Amino acid sequence: MDHWVIIDTETSRHSVVFGESIINKNNIIECPLCPGKENLTLSEILAYRPDNSKKNTPGWIKRIIPNSIPSVRIEGEFKKSGIGMYDMMTGIGAHEIIIETPHHDLDIQDQDLKTIENTIWAYRDRIIDLKNDRRLKYILIFKNRGFVAGATMDHPHSQLIATPIIPKRIDEELSNALRYYKYKERCVFCDIIQQELQYKERIIIENPLFISFSPFASISPFESWILPLKHNSNFEDISANEVIELAKILKDTLRRISIALNKPAYNYILHTAPANAHGMEYYHWHIEIIPKMAKLTSFEWDTGLYVNPTSPEDSSRYLRSI
Amino acid sequence: MDHWVIIDTETSRHSVVFGESIINKNNIIECPLCPGKENLTLSEILAYRPDNSKKNTPGWIKRIIPNSIPSVRIEGEFKKSGIGMYDMMTGIGAHEIIIETPHHDLDIQDQDLKTIENTIWAYRDRIIDLKNDRRLKYILIFKNRGFVAGATMDHPHSQLIATPIIPKRIDEELSNALRYYKYKERCVFCDIIQQELQYKERIIIENPLFISFSPFASISPFESWILPLKHNSNFEDISANEVIELAKILKDTLRRISIALNKPAYNYILHTAPANAHGMEYYHWHIEIIPKMAKLTSFEWDTGLYVNPTSPEDSSRYLRSI
Repeated sequence: MDHWVIIDTETSRHSVVFGESIINKNNIIECPLCPGKENLTLSEILAYRPDNSKKNTPGWIKRIIPNSIPSVRIEGEFKKSGIGMYDMMTGIGAHEIIIETPHHDLDIQDQDLKTIENTIWAYRDRIIDLKNDRRLKYILIFKNRGFVAGATMDHPHSQLIATPIIPKRIDEELSNALRYYKYKERCVFCDIIQQELQYKERIIIENPLFISFSPFASISPFESWILPLKHNSNFEDISANEVIELAKILKDTLRRISIALNKPAYNYILHTAPANAHGMEYYHWHIEIIPKMAKLTSFEWDTGLYVNPTSPEDSSRYLRSI
Repeated sequence: MDHWVIIDTETSRHSVVFGESIINKNNIIECPLCPGKENLTLSEILAYRPDNSKKNTPGWIKRIIPNSIPSVRIEGEFKKSGIGMYDMMTGIGAHEIIIETPHHDLDIQDQDLKTIENTIWAYRDRIIDLKNDRRLKYILIFKNRGFVAGATMDHPHSQLIATPIIPKRIDEELSNALRYYKYKERCVFCDIIQQELQYKERIIIENPLFISFSPFASISPFESWILPLKHNSNFEDISANEVIELAKILKDTLRRISIALNKPAYNYILHTAPANAHGMEYYHWHIEIIPKMAKLTSFEWDTGLYVNPTSPEDSSRYLRSI
């Protein structure tokens, strides 16, 4: 009840369903995200090519392509309908792969800062472009690193999924932030920043424009959030200076997590305002990094009864010490 | 924001946190849930002993013990406190193991109906007993079967966790059901039953007192719900006839899932009214069975953007055909 699901029976994922294993092992021999293999992917949407090389050839430093097994598609008519008490809509949208670097083995904590800055710019460029499609309610940018985090390819990449709905957890976060704002007339994230800076015990890194910290009552061990100190609901309004400082704190936070947990699988998710909202006083964009190393059982997600074996105070103390 | 987490740094789970692996492999050689190994567990809370055998000895057909690595504990003072904007409470509660059968290898779809009926009676007995502790807001009964579903022991068992909070997903379900009730003045689950019986395309099994079906827009492939046809918010008010029919439909549904997916890991969760509520017009107890075979990525849970590669109509058609 009260959620949307993409029923995606058209894709090749279908083949994994009637088997015993939950694991669809990646047996790709040639990496389709490497330079020289551009012919293995769909035609690029955008690429940063400092050498002015030709589209869909090597020479790029950042390349954005449509996911060849998309969960949603930009084409087709957008329709809403109902059967009795149930509601449906066409699964339109966009699903893109942002290839962060031509180097197959260079994960984000080992990339140079310029590369990470360019990834951040690429996120921004894609959000600004997709906001022109008024059917899209949310543009979700995320990175799945490692198999248990859902990645099917090793080559460093992020993903973008734009949908005609707001993903449920983001929608809940927006509602909770609005409720807090109505009660306090302040942004809850600004209050969290202030409290964390005062108590210090959950802070991982502070820089002039951002903090990273282990959130109070975090669900997963070593969960880490990165927040801009300046209130801003929309990631795409990020300033040039903020891009520089975000690249630094993202790299440094991931580097500490990588050392602490021996290169764990992780997800990070960019939480930003819905596509058609702007200048929201009650919302504050941020990045949530969730390492996947404790056995968080699916049961915990199914019930919402979370057990975290590591306190955020212990997590952040350990990450600070690295 | 807006969730409770059990921060559980006291247990032996702690040792798995600082490692590389997400998998804490079960290397128990002697099964502590088998008859004759009663000395390996904490003293039993309740047992069904048709031969009047002595406590903590063999002879039982059903045995309920405290979890020796509990997430919450019944002892201790219950306190609520706050630090700035954050709230805390003592993690009091109960965590119990319900050993369903003395037979180590007899999973529920292979158990005789009497055994399953007795498991259902045991669930009821424990709920009625724990409701006497007014600090407990919710008594959650569930079964994790198989390692990827979170089980650390193979011996057929269910679990009970009683907490001073309502688990988040259950709380959401209650809120959504209340909102529907306020709008329609009808129980949403009664309406779902009526619509499913009318359309038939998602029904798996009907019997005189229950239906099992694949819910509309289900999040996981082959997710299956069992609902009593008669409106009742509180599982512990189940009638003797309902126990008989529930045992049948639970066994038959799990048997079909077991054949269809080749003995998959699964969770089932009993959704019932909060411990201090009774006779709710807007809520309807039920069981949700969630096989764990598609690669539902943690990313989907983190965002609430769900992709299900198998439609519930296909799932139920396949399960009906077995």
